[in-house]
Amino acid sequence: MEKKIPYKIYLSEEELPKAWYNLRADMVNKPAPLLNPETFQPMTAEELEQVFCKELVKQELDEDNAYIEIPEEIRDFYKMYRPAPLIRAYCLEEKLQTPAKIYYKFEGNNTSGSHKLNSAIAQAYYAKKQGLKGVTTETGAGQWGTALSMGCSYFGLDCKVYMVKCSYEQKPFRREVMRTYGASVTPSPSMDTEVGQRILAEHPGTSGSLGCAISEAVEVASKTEGYRYVLGSVMNQVMLHQSVIGLETLTALNKYGEKADIIIGCAGGGSNLGGLIAPFMGQKLRGEADYRFIAVEPASCPSLSRGKFVYDYCDTGKVCPLQKMYTLGSGFIPAANHAGGLRYHGMSATLSQLYHDGLMEAVTVPQTKVFEAAEYFARIEGILPAPESAHAIRVAIDEALKCKETGEEKTIVFGLTGTGYFDMYAYEKFHNGQMEDYVPSDEELEKAFAKLPQF
Amino acid sequence: MEKKIPYKIYLSEEELPKAWYNLRADMVNKPAPLLNPETFQPMTAEELEQVFCKELVKQELDEDNAYIEIPEEIRDFYKMYRPAPLIRAYCLEEKLQTPAKIYYKFEGNNTSGSHKLNSAIAQAYYAKKQGLKGVTTETGAGQWGTALSMGCSYFGLDCKVYMVKCSYEQKPFRREVMRTYGASVTPSPSMDTEVGQRILAEHPGTSGSLGCAISEAVEVASKTEGYRYVLGSVMNQVMLHQSVIGLETLTALNKYGEKADIIIGCAGGGSNLGGLIAPFMGQKLRGEADYRFIAVEPASCPSLSRGKFVYDYCDTGKVCPLQKMYTLGSGFIPAANHAGGLRYHGMSATLSQLYHDGLMEAVTVPQTKVFEAAEYFARIEGILPAPESAHAIRVAIDEALKCKETGEEKTIVFGLTGTGYFDMYAYEKFHNGQMEDYVPSDEELEKAFAKLPQF
Repeated sequence: MEKKIPYKIYLSEEELPKAWYNLRADMVNKPAPLLNPETFQPMTAEELEQVFCKELVKQELDEDNAYIEIPEEIRDFYKMYRPAPLIRAYCLEEKLQTPAKIYYKFEGNNTSGSHKLNSAIAQAYYAKKQGLKGVTTETGAGQWGTALSMGCSYFGLDCKVYMVKCSYEQKPFRREVMRTYGASVTPSPSMDTEVGQRILAEHPGTSGSLGCAISEAVEVASKTEGYRYVLGSVMNQVMLHQSVIGLETLTALNKYGEKADIIIGCAGGGSNLGGLIAPFMGQKLRGEADYRFIAVEPASCPSLSRGKFVYDYCDTGKVCPLQKMYTLGSGFIPAANHAGGLRYHGMSATLSQLYHDGLMEAVTVPQTKVFEAAEYFARIEGILPAPESAHAIRVAIDEALKCKETGEEKTIVFGLTGTGYFDMYAYEKFHNGQMEDYVPSDEELEKAFAKLPQF
Repeated sequence: MEKKIPYKIYLSEEELPKAWYNLRADMVNKPAPLLNPETFQPMTAEELEQVFCKELVKQELDEDNAYIEIPEEIRDFYKMYRPAPLIRAYCLEEKLQTPAKIYYKFEGNNTSGSHKLNSAIAQAYYAKKQGLKGVTTETGAGQWGTALSMGCSYFGLDCKVYMVKCSYEQKPFRREVMRTYGASVTPSPSMDTEVGQRILAEHPGTSGSLGCAISEAVEVASKTEGYRYVLGSVMNQVMLHQSVIGLETLTALNKYGEKADIIIGCAGGGSNLGGLIAPFMGQKLRGEADYRFIAVEPASCPSLSRGKFVYDYCDTGKVCPLQKMYTLGSGFIPAANHAGGLRYHGMSATLSQLYHDGLMEAVTVPQTKVFEAAEYFARIEGILPAPESAHAIRVAIDEALKCKETGEEKTIVFGLTGTGYFDMYAYEKFHNGQMEDYVPSDEELEKAFAKLPQF
């Protein structure tokens, strides 16, 4: 078969984005401001700078500039692992016998194993430029921690990672990758922090949560001279850096005269999905093009699909600012699930606003169906996906099968955020038929909603 | 700094090789023929076809055709993960402050994590074309087994992998990747085979060896209807398929008017090194260009550096053909070492002949120095290397530092065969200062040489 479009579209270095795209500049309804967790008043730049790097605070609050230049040092680092290929899933299309064209943007070809490096290197750069000694952060599945270790190692910054205890124990390999890059890794909750001590006293033997690890990392950053806290998802600044995914995708499609109809991404805190859809959503907001956007969530942690659009804490310890977002409540404890990167109670404020305004859809998928899709995809397209990414694969396949029924030649684009090399325990469970699905009951959600902040 | 050559050179699909290069066609001193382990007479095609696929036997014995066309089905699969980038190590050069230019051909951007997939997909293709039901093989570190599972899954072939017991136990993740691709994985030695039973009786509690796993896989292939045995290294056919590495490298260098001075690769059985150097060695043999070629071996298993150039068995069980090669003796048991892919007693017959004829150099490096280089490289270039690949990194850095002393602007090219994601136990040992170096004594080698076959 003659194939006019290559299997993998690689942009040249000259075609790499020179600026990030700030979607908020094109939004009519802007995301609501962050609130101070003590006063419930909008956070000022000065307040935010106690916790975050100065330049990142500027980016966090910037709703006016549609493009923000990518500093040359960051672009040079990007060149070591970018452009990420936009892959035409010829083999998958053939196997499904679908008239749909399927593309995926593959962000797994770097040592962090995911798209997280796009923001990690930027945050490390600004911390270094500010003259800081180091940064603190949390990590769940370990992708963000790995990415940040790499960024800090490159710029010679100290990196303290609080890793959710169950991941720390189940993923010793991830921990060692971080150590290879010189990071210190502490299982959370730990006795290092007041919030860790409090949580351990209240819940002895807890295996930790992302919300708790965030609280610890924030506490250490605010109490240690020359340190700031950095975050791998949810925040506006992260969405901004991740726009590099969408910008490359749009350029690659344009290069071959292709136009997406449906754009699909998995959604935990929203960094990958937000980055992938940003420039396409911009076109939609400006009335230049139309697309269907689908956020895919795990059925066990359905923030957009079943959450409330209200102000909530971003972390369990309630030390972070509050954000208006779709949330299951910062007290919601998602069931054990092998897509650790999607086990977050909330969602990016930007994506929440877009979803609220009807500009984006959301669907949930159960875990076993996700792993079925992951294995199917691995065998056909060769790449072993991360469980998180496989959520998007599941829905992309489902949409392609709908096209098969209707005969529509839609163009489907999805984000393949990372690889599953460090998730083989989960695959093993799946192979051995030991994987279970979990859907929280309405009562369970109502209980969590009842604890949402009232003010 | 203005950089005329991009960080990563990606060829277009049109520039991908359409034929493999068969180095033997240009060799004056051809590698010696394989011998039948029972009669010690040269193996005929008919005899080899009892064990290997017909078309692969043809390739194994072909010393005349310099180019052998790559079938379209294989080229299509190659397009899913190739071209592999040729990366200019700008960051490493700067860190080392060397006038040398350093390039590396990175073969780790596929799920098998190494170059092994280049031959695995070819062997699976020919097995399928011959109408076989399945294939058997052995795997040590697991890269070859993973690659073959992927190839078999793609063409719908059954795949039985005998995995060296210590790897099977230490690398459960590798096992699960293979299962994801539908392979059956058995720890070796097993009770499935006569040779396994014999070895277990003689050495109860043995943790296995590559030579023993080969014997088991060969036995199962020869006793099971519709099955053949396939091998991931050492054989001429594998060198042939791996020439795709060197061909792409040469095309990429030519595209930017670059000329290599030194070409470096790690050497276990020789598949990566042989593939990388093939077209360059061809130029040297034909008098068109000159290069220094350096094979890097672990100090614990120095086949070329300290072995004898004689006929020896390729496997411990002595069921495979004999090959004239540099060998430490099929009874030599290398010390525990974290570069499992380099723990083989022998070496490709083609590379052995080239080394014997003075066309190639060999050096050995101790394990801790290799891991120092691995970590250094990871922090600077971002990619976490496999311990095997880090042998080449070590020597590339050493050569670049020599250039720093002499001021010579040499162009160094090395093969980065794979990633170390499944080798984190080894990195952990290194981080914890628990890694040891081992160099076999002369007496130990003499003992092993004394058991070489006499005829």
